[in-house]
Amino acid sequence: MNAIEKLVRKFSEFPGIGPKQARRFVYFLIRQSDAYVGEFKREIDELRSDITVCAECKRYFAKNGAAKICNICADGSRDRTALLVVSRDIDLENIEKSGSFAGTYFVLGGAVPVLDKEPEKRIRLKDLLALVEKRAANGLREIILGLDANAEGEYTGEIVSRSLVPLAEKHGIKISELGRGLSSGTELEYSDPETIKNALKNRQ
Amino acid sequence: MNAIEKLVRKFSEFPGIGPKQARRFVYFLIRQSDAYVGEFKREIDELRSDITVCAECKRYFAKNGAAKICNICADGSRDRTALLVVSRDIDLENIEKSGSFAGTYFVLGGAVPVLDKEPEKRIRLKDLLALVEKRAANGLREIILGLDANAEGEYTGEIVSRSLVPLAEKHGIKISELGRGLSSGTELEYSDPETIKNALKNRQ
Amino acid sequence: MNAIEKLVRKFSEFPGIGPKQARRFVYFLIRQSDAYVGEFKREIDELRSDITVCAECKRYFAKNGAAKICNICADGSRDRTALLVVSRDIDLENIEKSGSFAGTYFVLGGAVPVLDKEPEKRIRLKDLLALVEKRAANGLREIILGLDANAEGEYTGEIVSRSLVPLAEKHGIKISELGRGLSSGTELEYSDPETIKNALKNRQ
Amino acid sequence: MNAIEKLVRKFSEFPGIGPKQARRFVYFLIRQSDAYVGEFKREIDELRSDITVCAECKRYFAKNGAAKICNICADGSRDRTALLVVSRDIDLENIEKSGSFAGTYFVLGGAVPVLDKEPEKRIRLKDLLALVEKRAANGLREIILGLDANAEGEYTGEIVSRSLVPLAEKHGIKISELGRGLSSGTELEYSDPETIKNALKNRQ
Repeated sequence: MNAIEKLVRKFSEFPGIGPKQARRFVYFLIRQSDAYVGEFKREIDELRSDITVCAECKRYFAKNGAAKICNICADGSRDRTALLVVSRDIDLENIEKSGSFAGTYFVLGGAVPVLDKEPEKRIRLKDLLALVEKRAANGLREIILGLDANAEGEYTGEIVSRSLVPLAEKHGIKISELGRGLSSGTELEYSDPETIKNALKNRQ
Repeated sequence: MNAIEKLVRKFSEFPGIGPKQARRFVYFLIRQSDAYVGEFKREIDELRSDITVCAECKRYFAKNGAAKICNICADGSRDRTALLVVSRDIDLENIEKSGSFAGTYFVLGGAVPVLDKEPEKRIRLKDLLALVEKRAANGLREIILGLDANAEGEYTGEIVSRSLVPLAEKHGIKISELGRGLSSGTELEYSDPETIKNALKNRQ
Repeated sequence: MNAIEKLVRKFSEFPGIGPKQARRFVYFLIRQSDAYVGEFKREIDELRSDITVCAECKRYFAKNGAAKICNICADGSRDRTALLVVSRDIDLENIEKSGSFAGTYFVLGGAVPVLDKEPEKRIRLKDLLALVEKRAANGLREIILGLDANAEGEYTGEIVSRSLVPLAEKHGIKISELGRGLSSGTELEYSDPETIKNALKNRQ
Repeated sequence: MNAIEKLVRKFSEFPGIGPKQARRFVYFLIRQSDAYVGEFKREIDELRSDITVCAECKRYFAKNGAAKICNICADGSRDRTALLVVSRDIDLENIEKSGSFAGTYFVLGGAVPVLDKEPEKRIRLKDLLALVEKRAANGLREIILGLDANAEGEYTGEIVSRSLVPLAEKHGIKISELGRGLSSGTELEYSDPETIKNALKNRQ
């Protein structure tokens, strides 16, 4: 297999990319200047060398001197009483963009497929428990499960809360979930029964 | 304009139908038997003659002897303490299908476009107030605004609750709205800021 | 089943309409004035009474006095040497709109599903042969098969030309098919092998 | 801007990739092993070092010893009388996949936007003329313009043929274009006037 086909195969492994688009990527790269491709590779190296995992929330962040924790965990003005548990960095970033959460986060690093037998291989359960234990001493009062509203997210939520319950009860920490109901733009005519049920249950 | 073009124009006024599909409807009708078209017209007549508006909830229902109210309003087992206000019959039907509401309904008959000057021409405000007045005497405790989670639905909600407030306060009736948050299937990565804000505010 | 459900079921039989949209049609009709619905039914009646089948091309057209043939067949300025055979009236109208054909038409009234055993029940083969016989005496020189470029259209084309061949040879009439190749907007990167093959074969 | 944002920006320049998907690529790369990323970078290096431009058709191909021309141009069994001119390597590959062309190719390296003032900066006109001159001596009889059936492709076709005409006339080489008409799957009901016009003009 020649270099074109090899790279087509590699790009086909990228999220959401099929062979046709992978091929377009390859020809795009062929046509670029050495300078462009050099910069691209340098930026990949930087990504690997400059990005590290936050010792607290486990999100990826750009190294900053000897700092072991990310800017959010380091930010004294964030509310330490609330911890928002999300699956992926990209969820955290989208929530930050919304500007509607002032607490801190924990990134599980993924979700647990329904019926998966070894969840601890999919998500950072131990790290979460360790962080909660540590934060409990510093005023943590609530853990919010910020997971996708689909089967995988719900199964992940069950796994996470089940392992959190003992610790939560011991320290009097509340475990909550994101509210279910009508998301923006929802029309009742096209809503599924589950959404309607939640919207009614959570009316206010 | 000949009969084909006239009917194409008429079908083009049907919700969600463009001229191309309207034309396909016309040729579909041309090709049908007289019996088929006769039945079609009979069913339209029946729709007009057998369907009436419920004296209470204002939904359309099939006449049943001299009954003035629909099967839901007539059903003694429905919870009279809660009234769910919706825009359209189709919303009511979808909520009924979900089987998650045991109270009674009121159909506004539409929604109010943002900044519309004469809402009372768009929705049945007077009828709603009359029904609430009447129901107040019979134990009505809560009015739930079951409106679309979009600009039009929110504007309609403001109009409706503004006109309900005096009556509600007088009779100690609570006015609530459907819960906002993550609808089924929502992924946080793709959620808009408003939905995230609501999901956090309404966590539980 | 009440009048609403009956009509929902009927509209669901319209081409391309599912139960959800059928229901919206029904509520649309309920909300209209008696005048509107009366006009709608009148236009359906007109469609049935004023539209007839052209004795020559078999297309539907608005009756015009005692005229037995449509305006196209009656138009002395159309080229009588070429006959374009199409499946449906809607194909004929789209071709007329393009303004690129000056000859006359014949409407088969449908297409023949692949392997269908009784094509003569699907399309007007006898009528076509009769028209060709008659036109042969009046200078008909070419029959163009104007069928969809899909399996059904190709199978229909085989059936039609097979039954036309004897007559065509007898009268020295050429049978042709619409050109195959790149349709407007086609990008080679996304073209299927068949289209590329045709585009190369028919290059000019 | 940190390494994540830099690479998000870079991936956003890839064909058809928006910032959201670019970000998913970046997190995908962060999560991969060093081995995986190392291989990815190696494959990019190989692409740059092992892939070269064919001295004749200008397509990209994997270097093969000292070979200056690609396997197609080197293949003695290909028909030297026909040269198919395409915009991009990806078009050439798709045509090869169709197995319907036995001649050789020339890759322009792009297309010319309508009204673009300096086409020779967009496409390899000089190289094409040089190749035609050379091939003319070796029996070249036809140049086929294999360009997209859109405005850009047609404008590119005009530019190319205009500059080819003198040479073509001098050597008695025919210039042809891919056939226009119905591409596979086209339904007449939904065809644009241009396609119908071509399908009729190119009937056979």
